[in-house]
Amino acid sequence: MSLTAASNSTTSDFPARLRDVAAAVETRLEALLSQPHGHQSVIFEAARYAALGGGKRLRPFLTVETARMLGGPLDQALSVGCALECLHVYSLVHDDLPCMDDDDLRRGKPTVHRAYDDAIAVLAGDALLTRSFGILGEVDLPADIRVKLVAELAVSGGMSGMIGGQVVDITVAEGERDEALITDLQAMKTGALIDFAVRAGGYVAGASETELAALSAYARDMGLAFQIQDDILDVTGDAETVGKAVGKDADLGKATFVSILGLEGARHRAKELGEQAKNRLEPWNKDAQTLRDTVDFVLERQH
Amino acid sequence: MSLTAASNSTTSDFPARLRDVAAAVETRLEALLSQPHGHQSVIFEAARYAALGGGKRLRPFLTVETARMLGGPLDQALSVGCALECLHVYSLVHDDLPCMDDDDLRRGKPTVHRAYDDAIAVLAGDALLTRSFGILGEVDLPADIRVKLVAELAVSGGMSGMIGGQVVDITVAEGERDEALITDLQAMKTGALIDFAVRAGGYVAGASETELAALSAYARDMGLAFQIQDDILDVTGDAETVGKAVGKDADLGKATFVSILGLEGARHRAKELGEQAKNRLEPWNKDAQTLRDTVDFVLERQH
Repeated sequence: MSLTAASNSTTSDFPARLRDVAAAVETRLEALLSQPHGHQSVIFEAARYAALGGGKRLRPFLTVETARMLGGPLDQALSVGCALECLHVYSLVHDDLPCMDDDDLRRGKPTVHRAYDDAIAVLAGDALLTRSFGILGEVDLPADIRVKLVAELAVSGGMSGMIGGQVVDITVAEGERDEALITDLQAMKTGALIDFAVRAGGYVAGASETELAALSAYARDMGLAFQIQDDILDVTGDAETVGKAVGKDADLGKATFVSILGLEGARHRAKELGEQAKNRLEPWNKDAQTLRDTVDFVLERQH
Repeated sequence: MSLTAASNSTTSDFPARLRDVAAAVETRLEALLSQPHGHQSVIFEAARYAALGGGKRLRPFLTVETARMLGGPLDQALSVGCALECLHVYSLVHDDLPCMDDDDLRRGKPTVHRAYDDAIAVLAGDALLTRSFGILGEVDLPADIRVKLVAELAVSGGMSGMIGGQVVDITVAEGERDEALITDLQAMKTGALIDFAVRAGGYVAGASETELAALSAYARDMGLAFQIQDDILDVTGDAETVGKAVGKDADLGKATFVSILGLEGARHRAKELGEQAKNRLEPWNKDAQTLRDTVDFVLERQH
């Protein structure tokens, strides 16, 4: 399924569009992670094992759909989205390591360190992170847009963004965790990349600073709603549907939006954030339907 | 010590120049790895622990000195060299992990996972790798040069470069290792970044394709000589001088240039490569004295 075909589908058919973009992401990632190789072929295999064959592909979807809303070039948006997906996947591979979350299951299959070993998992993550920036360095966009994407992804994925959030998550004691702290934590850990996903679509399409600010506001609200739904699923979901271990946070006595706000309180907060996110899209009126539908999708998802 | 001061020193005083650039690298890295931070401060500390306070800084030295030889802007070359150094340091942090080489000592002090823990070491490595590309994305050079640097560093540090070499090193059985294999392995594992170091100086200075090709030829010969000297030091050095564990390769029965060529054979091969490297610099005549001196330094170093 190509992205061109996806662009012909109607925006009202959200599930079909999500599937179309996910299929295009899969095909593009397949191409981006395929290179001639010799004795080191196991690292290509492990990187492909981690990156291919599944996932909602929400981040590249946001990049592509934001670019589409703004009339930007979809093929380039797809590559940029795939760069971001490589970075997201590396973070999952490293987070799953025994010295971090020690997870055996990811997207319904054994994690990389279980399928290979810890050393290969560390290196496959490193390779995907490196490739992520390589894709942005090579993508067919003006050089000034490429350097903006590189610089901003490095911040979003770095010590003040995703990595910073992960560090807070594994180091801050439970007693110190209140709603403000876990909101900040999640804004870094998951929010920063969702923000980048949307802004990247804006950059690809040459968005103005005003547009980028509105897109960021949408992304921040939606990203937090996404994380609250994640916490809800950790309590209400089952491992088979979610595709990874559930109930871990509760077992660990970990402070989450559910433990702090209660299940109903968390649902209410997520819904509120979702409405707020949609309101951020007013400037684009009906062109923003897919990004609005994405909010509903995030809130209604069961995995 | 600033780089401006270094540029006033005479090229004949190689040790002073090496010290001057190392001091400038230290100061610049200090600035590049300093940001406002909150609960995640431990990750900044760990990244700084790994990156600051030591090392020959050979890679940034090569970038700066190549740019100097070609009349390029030194301040920008210094930042690019520091980006490369961050990537080099991340690779050391991850290579030292228990699931990889399991080293306790690096540059004469406890490795990051010994000083902190495995999770922080994984994340500090990730953070340095991410920051490396962030620095290149932000450096004050024309955007088209920045994207070239990003794209090329991703290849040099990726699955067909440094990571590929590390994978071959940890996965290929001893029986399969001959001189050709370990030459290829080292060309990827250490050679690719040394090549990048020199080429990056060329890019910063706007070098032509012909010049870049000569610089690469120099870097490849010198990089291999560097690795052979590393193997020699693993046999002849002592841990205190070398600053890390020695004799490990021999203890592990690992094939090295010394085990394959013998100690004298390895010394001869390194010397031969060194001469060849110097000959590559003919186009620059006396302007290349520092890069020639670097070859001698690499061959004569005791750590």
